[in-house]
Amino acid sequence: MTTPLRLGLAGLGTVGAGVVKIVAARANLLARRTGRPVVITAVSARTRDKDRGVDLAPYAWEDDPVALARREDVDVFVELMGGSDGPAKAASEAAIAAGKDVVTANKAMLAIHGQALAEAAEEAGRVIRFEAAVAGGIPVVKALTEGLAGNEITRVMGVMNGTCNYILTRMENAGLPYEEVFDEANKLGYLEADPTLDVGGIDAGHKLALLAAIAFGTKVDFPAMELEGIERISIDDIRHAADMGFRIKLLGVAQMTGRGLEQRMSPCLVPADSALGQLQNATNMVVLEGDAVGQIVLRGAGAGEGPTASAVMSDVLDIARGIRVSTFGAPAAGLETARPARVAAAAPYYLRMELQDKPGALAKVATVLGEAGVSIDRMRQYRHAETTAPVLIVTHKTTRDALDHARHGFAETGVLVGEPVAIRIESV
Amino acid sequence: MTTPLRLGLAGLGTVGAGVVKIVAARANLLARRTGRPVVITAVSARTRDKDRGVDLAPYAWEDDPVALARREDVDVFVELMGGSDGPAKAASEAAIAAGKDVVTANKAMLAIHGQALAEAAEEAGRVIRFEAAVAGGIPVVKALTEGLAGNEITRVMGVMNGTCNYILTRMENAGLPYEEVFDEANKLGYLEADPTLDVGGIDAGHKLALLAAIAFGTKVDFPAMELEGIERISIDDIRHAADMGFRIKLLGVAQMTGRGLEQRMSPCLVPADSALGQLQNATNMVVLEGDAVGQIVLRGAGAGEGPTASAVMSDVLDIARGIRVSTFGAPAAGLETARPARVAAAAPYYLRMELQDKPGALAKVATVLGEAGVSIDRMRQYRHAETTAPVLIVTHKTTRDALDHARHGFAETGVLVGEPVAIRIESV
Repeated sequence: MTTPLRLGLAGLGTVGAGVVKIVAARANLLARRTGRPVVITAVSARTRDKDRGVDLAPYAWEDDPVALARREDVDVFVELMGGSDGPAKAASEAAIAAGKDVVTANKAMLAIHGQALAEAAEEAGRVIRFEAAVAGGIPVVKALTEGLAGNEITRVMGVMNGTCNYILTRMENAGLPYEEVFDEANKLGYLEADPTLDVGGIDAGHKLALLAAIAFGTKVDFPAMELEGIERISIDDIRHAADMGFRIKLLGVAQMTGRGLEQRMSPCLVPADSALGQLQNATNMVVLEGDAVGQIVLRGAGAGEGPTASAVMSDVLDIARGIRVSTFGAPAAGLETARPARVAAAAPYYLRMELQDKPGALAKVATVLGEAGVSIDRMRQYRHAETTAPVLIVTHKTTRDALDHARHGFAETGVLVGEPVAIRIESV
Repeated sequence: MTTPLRLGLAGLGTVGAGVVKIVAARANLLARRTGRPVVITAVSARTRDKDRGVDLAPYAWEDDPVALARREDVDVFVELMGGSDGPAKAASEAAIAAGKDVVTANKAMLAIHGQALAEAAEEAGRVIRFEAAVAGGIPVVKALTEGLAGNEITRVMGVMNGTCNYILTRMENAGLPYEEVFDEANKLGYLEADPTLDVGGIDAGHKLALLAAIAFGTKVDFPAMELEGIERISIDDIRHAADMGFRIKLLGVAQMTGRGLEQRMSPCLVPADSALGQLQNATNMVVLEGDAVGQIVLRGAGAGEGPTASAVMSDVLDIARGIRVSTFGAPAAGLETARPARVAAAAPYYLRMELQDKPGALAKVATVLGEAGVSIDRMRQYRHAETTAPVLIVTHKTTRDALDHARHGFAETGVLVGEPVAIRIESV
């Protein structure tokens, strides 16, 4: 196998430039490992004249990514443009139709069109690989699809949006409110053009949906995911959670239950001394649980030029080595949509509420909880300078239903100021 | 590809029984993932009549693993007997000669004969896979060989012997001396028949040598490894290290330096709040560092029926899927032996010594260190009930040479009681 593997690269942002650098600088290493040269033949991007810190002169240029995807001298179409639809999808479809393999970092496209693309690739005898779409440099798609292939996967968890984790840890470490850290992150260029993708949990949700499809052998079903962002997390909750031994993370959890497939991406409390609790800044962590292997934890950079380019190259080099695995780990044509679990599994919850500072207020709250069937594990009432007193409650395992019931009851007592905050505590 | 993949399984201990259970219980899952049935056709072990908790009736029996390896109805020879030579090696060689792929959990055999076996397999067009040989259920061989294939690997580190980590954490948590915990571990069945393999660092050293070969594209060179076990780690050192913010781990480090390939498996101090420092009990952790990806940390069970069988199955299912990668990630015929680095890279050290409790003793020690070119970062002298005072020193970066020089100087001062203890502090 000394035929070169020829890449056509669409998208020359940070990650694209990173891929060009690796292919140019590590040609010998890559050829030694795969047994054949890996070369870039053509590239495409929105603007041609822009200093990207790499020499593009050796490569043919295409203005149109679809034309690039169809080029005769391209074996693998590397899609690094992003966007769930538009050129990324059109070019990926064109590549498959033209008999090319596809390597992409595009979680949005796959979370929405992954099943259709995987079926098209399968019919054409091509592969779609997406290690770079999930958790940056961490080889988690490979670990799950191949490394744990002998396991029935029981649960997948992860902190997979570095920006959110940066915001949450920065709030805690610097004692700053959400809005201030959000602006900071924006200035540092950490946020997507549409910040809701990050702080709304959508980007991380896309990633979790892809892992869930592999883990449980089902069609990607992003619309079924329970999504909640970090926009309403207050510095107060971060501090109070810390007081009780927890940290707040934007945590993804996917598990197959008797009630169907549960997929959640939402702020959760995790023990401060757990691996997930200790995750700082923009680092990502994925936890994979299988019936045979137990728990595997993977940690690494979730974004950035080098880490993401490393993941792209992993897919490219697999193809160079002749490694061909179904997009989601099993033939796409045979995948079925899982019944979504309508209600999340019971869990303990963290509750915070402001009580009017008058006799009997706490008793009323406790009574409402009792009547809703929510039992209290721990409670703390804080003295306050003003006329209200914050109360923290950690409940025993309970359901969202019971909590909603309690919430109605609280309103009737007339002793609460504002809305109570309820955040799930995940056992990790 | 609906032809079944047929396994011949030699060795029916804990791991072998675990593999039988997965293949029997998960037939549908495995077939769905790989696109073909995976079946066991024949098995072999030392004794036939023994209750292993699995039904062996469906499989042909062979007393001789070599005969098993040569059977017509076997495609993959799964070697789970252990031992660097003897039947494991003979049967693996026979399997390759007969045109079978080999999956093994045998780190000792590969650390010593891996190069020869890999060359033989390559000539025969077969593969040898060994995910289960390193860090149990953690898919680290795959992560390194494939997941990080686009990186120049800069360093590999790991805590890869669960028994040693169990002993060290148990000593610290229960405040017990080495001998007592060793006996405990022995009664729990945690130790190999020859405990030196565990506590002498040999088993972990075998694993590191395999990872180093993949990481640096060199021939496995276990004899070049600097090896030191945990037998001399005292509860005093564990406590004093904790006082200074460190934990003691049996840590493997492999890195390519200007002075050649450095491979060490030895007790090291690591920061107590680092991921490695926080690793408790028998859990394993491997840290992979690459020029593009940065640092990837993987954690999981390093031994046991389920985790090790999971790793074996990962290799088997790769073969079922047609994934064929060179044993050490690049063609074996092209690998060269790396020049071994004779001296480890400079590092800070932890020194503990007992001084006679008389005036000027500490000054003499400080003078000797200064003359040897070892500069002091932190020092603590403890008050003691007896006639000697323990002194702890954390040095700035220094070399083993300078420390040996100081050690000679110490002897001449006549103020030390016993030998000083020196343990490397690894920056993780």
